[in-house]
Amino acid sequence: MNILEMIAKKQKKQELTKEEIEYFIEGYTKESIPDYQVAGLVMAIYINGMSMEETTNLTLAMANSGEVLDLTELGIVVDKHSTGGVGDKITLILMPIMSALGVPVAKMSGRGLGFTGGTADKLEAIPGYQTNLSIEKFKQNVKEIGISLITQTGNLAPADKKLYALRDAISCTDSIPLIASSIMSKKIASGASKIVLDVTCGNGAFMKTKEEAVELAKVMKQIGNLAGKETVCIITNMEEPLGYSVGNTLEIIETLEALKGNMLPDVKEVVLTLGSYILKLAGKGDNIEENKAKIEMCLLSNLAYEKFIELVEKQEGDASYCRHPNQLKKAEKFVYVTKQEEGYIKEMRAELIGKVACYLGAGRTKKEDSIDMTAGVILNKKVGDYVEKGEVIATLYTNDITKIEEARKRMEEAIKITEEKPKKEKMILEII
Amino acid sequence: MNILEMIAKKQKKQELTKEEIEYFIEGYTKESIPDYQVAGLVMAIYINGMSMEETTNLTLAMANSGEVLDLTELGIVVDKHSTGGVGDKITLILMPIMSALGVPVAKMSGRGLGFTGGTADKLEAIPGYQTNLSIEKFKQNVKEIGISLITQTGNLAPADKKLYALRDAISCTDSIPLIASSIMSKKIASGASKIVLDVTCGNGAFMKTKEEAVELAKVMKQIGNLAGKETVCIITNMEEPLGYSVGNTLEIIETLEALKGNMLPDVKEVVLTLGSYILKLAGKGDNIEENKAKIEMCLLSNLAYEKFIELVEKQEGDASYCRHPNQLKKAEKFVYVTKQEEGYIKEMRAELIGKVACYLGAGRTKKEDSIDMTAGVILNKKVGDYVEKGEVIATLYTNDITKIEEARKRMEEAIKITEEKPKKEKMILEII
Repeated sequence: MNILEMIAKKQKKQELTKEEIEYFIEGYTKESIPDYQVAGLVMAIYINGMSMEETTNLTLAMANSGEVLDLTELGIVVDKHSTGGVGDKITLILMPIMSALGVPVAKMSGRGLGFTGGTADKLEAIPGYQTNLSIEKFKQNVKEIGISLITQTGNLAPADKKLYALRDAISCTDSIPLIASSIMSKKIASGASKIVLDVTCGNGAFMKTKEEAVELAKVMKQIGNLAGKETVCIITNMEEPLGYSVGNTLEIIETLEALKGNMLPDVKEVVLTLGSYILKLAGKGDNIEENKAKIEMCLLSNLAYEKFIELVEKQEGDASYCRHPNQLKKAEKFVYVTKQEEGYIKEMRAELIGKVACYLGAGRTKKEDSIDMTAGVILNKKVGDYVEKGEVIATLYTNDITKIEEARKRMEEAIKITEEKPKKEKMILEII
Repeated sequence: MNILEMIAKKQKKQELTKEEIEYFIEGYTKESIPDYQVAGLVMAIYINGMSMEETTNLTLAMANSGEVLDLTELGIVVDKHSTGGVGDKITLILMPIMSALGVPVAKMSGRGLGFTGGTADKLEAIPGYQTNLSIEKFKQNVKEIGISLITQTGNLAPADKKLYALRDAISCTDSIPLIASSIMSKKIASGASKIVLDVTCGNGAFMKTKEEAVELAKVMKQIGNLAGKETVCIITNMEEPLGYSVGNTLEIIETLEALKGNMLPDVKEVVLTLGSYILKLAGKGDNIEENKAKIEMCLLSNLAYEKFIELVEKQEGDASYCRHPNQLKKAEKFVYVTKQEEGYIKEMRAELIGKVACYLGAGRTKKEDSIDMTAGVILNKKVGDYVEKGEVIATLYTNDITKIEEARKRMEEAIKITEEKPKKEKMILEII
C-alpha cells in the first residue's frame, strides 16, 4: 500500500478500497504518514468527493482507530447528536426525559467552538458538576440511576480528532462525506446501539440549506445502517437561536424551566420529535404521536426534572442551584438591545447571535480559550413577535464592560424588523 | 492576507491575486506557513488549475524567493533547458559548440532523479571536474574562456526547491502550471537573458503526448515573454533514448565522440535545431538553416571539442581522460542484451531503459542516493535497425553482479521487434 498511489487515485476521481482507507487512517494515527501527505489526500477528497462505500469505510476506520466502547450491558442505548447550533440545549432537556421514560442514557457530549456551544461546557455551569468520568464510573452511573452525561473521554476515534484539526487548518470543513464520517465515527466508537441525529439547517448551522442538510442526513443514515446502527435523522430549523438563551449558565436556567414543562414552542417541537423517535428506536413504542404524549405526561409528572437533579447529584454537582436557579450567577454587566422601529421581528440571525455570545465571553474562538460561564444572550422576543419602538428585544450579559457596546451594535444588526407579520417557519423540516 | 481564504478560493476555482501568491510563497519560504497548508493549496491548484496570470505570478514569486543572478555583464546569455529525458547529453555537446561560436555560456544544470539523468552528475564523471563553483568564479570563467557549466548553486529559487519536494511527496508533479513555473522560476533566477527550452515528449519524458508538451511549451513561452525573457520552445521526441548511451561516464564518452563530429542522427538533429535557435536569440544570425551550417562547420573545425577540453581544465577536471576516452573506466561487469527474434527494432522504450540504467546504479531513486558513475546502458542498435536473432542490441554495465540478470530481462522487455521496417519518427515535433 502506498499513500502516493492513493492520492493519485483520488486525483483521478477513482475509488479507494477499504484496505487503502484503513492503511491511511492507521498510518495517520500512528504518524507514519505525515500531515502534508494527508492534507494532499484530504484536499483531493474534498474536491473530488467520496462514494458512499468509501465514506462508510472511512467512518469505520476512524471509529476503530482507538477504543470502541461496548455499552451492550446497559441495554439499547440510543445516542442523540446534533450537528450544532446556537442556543441548542436539547440534549440537556431531552435526555433526562428519556431516562425518566426508561431509556438508558449514556451520552458523551462535546465542547463549544466558534459560534456554537457544547453540552459539556453547559453542564459545567452547574457548580461542582463533573464531566470527566472514567468509562467504568460512566457505565456504573447509568446502571444505578439510568443516566450519565459526560464529555468525550478516553481514546475515542483519535484519527477523527487529528483529521478534524487538519481539515480546519486547510479549509476542508464543509465537505459532506468528511462531516458525516467525523460525526458517525464518534457515535460508533462511543458504543450507541441506535442513533438519532438532529441535523440542523440554516444560517446558525454548518448546513446552510435544506438540500445540504438532507444530503448529509442521507449519508449519515446510510453509514449508520451499513455499520449496523439503526439511525434516524431529523432536519431542524436553525435560522434563529433555539429557545430564549445563548450561553452556558443562561441555558442551564432555561433547561431547568423546560424540565418543569415551561418550554418555548420551538424547543418543545424539537424535544417532542427527537424524543418520540428515540423512544421508538429504544423499543418503547412505535407510534410517534403516542410517544409525544408520553413525553408531555412525563413533563407534567416532574419526573424528568427530578431525574436531572439526580444526575447532577450523581456527578457531584450542587443540586441546590438547580432547585433555586436564581442562585445561578449571571454576568454582572448587562445591556438591553432595542430597535428604533416598531413591527414584527422578521429575523434573529442565529450565527450572528452565536458570535455575539462568543464575543461576550460565552464561547471559544480557539480550542485553548477559556470561557465565561455567566456570559451570553437572553432573547426577550422571538421571530414573529411584535415589538414597540425601543422595546427590549434581547439582553446581553458579560463581565467585560469594554465589549458591551460593540456587542449591542452587532446584536442590533442581527435583528430585522418588518411591517407584515412574517410566516413562522417550521422547526422540523424533514425526517429521514 | 490569509492562507485559508486562498485555499477556499482555489477550491472554488477562483483566481489568486499577485499579492496572495507572493504572500504564500514568502510564507512558505520563511516557514511561517506550514507544509500541510501548502500541501492543501497545491492539491487544489493541481486539481483546479491556474490561469496564465497566476502561473506567471507564481513563477516570479518563486524566482524572487532567493538570489536572482545578474549576468548582464556577460552579454546576451541564452540559457538552454531540457524538461528531462533518457540519454539526454545535449547540453554537454551543444554548449561548447555555442561557446566556440561566440555565445557566452553560463549554465547551471541539475542532477538526475528517477529515470532521467542530470548534466551536473555527468560532468562529475570526468575525474576532478568541479561543478560547485561560487557565482564569482562562475562569471569569471565565462569572461575568461566563454563557458562555465556548474550545478545549481547559491540560494536560487529556494521556494521552488521546497515546493518541488512537496509536490513529489503528494503526487502533484504532473501539473502543467506547476511544472512550467518550477522550470521558469529557476531559469529567471539564474539570470538568463533569453531561453531555449527543449520540451521532451514521449514515454521517456514527463510529457507523454505531444498535446501536453505543446501546452507546457506555450505556458512556459508566455511566462518567459511576460517576464521579459524571449523564449523559444522546441518539442523533441523522447520515445527511445537519445543517442546510444545512458549513464554518466558512458554519456561523457558519447559526448566526446559527438564533439568530434560523430553523432547519431537523432542527437545531431536536436543539437542543430536547438543550437540554431540559440544562435538566433543570441543575435548571431536570423537564418536557421545558415545557423545549422555554422554549427556543422564548427564541428568540422574541432573548435567545440577544444572548447570542451578548455572547460574541463578550467573546472579542474583531468582533461587527459577527455583526450583518451578509453581511459574512462566503465563498470566491470557487463552483459549483452539480445532478442530471440529477427526483424526491425520497433521500440526501445526510453522510460524502461532509463529505469534499467538507474537500477544498474547510474541513477537515484531518492535524492540522497549515491550513484555509480560507471554503470549504464549502451545501445548497440536504435529503433529502425535490423537485427539478427541473438545479435547484440544493447550492453549493460554495472558493478553489482546481483542486478545484472534482472536488468537484462527488463531491458529485453523494453525492446520490441517487428517484421516490417517501422517508420522512423521525427525528432523535432514542433517549434513554439
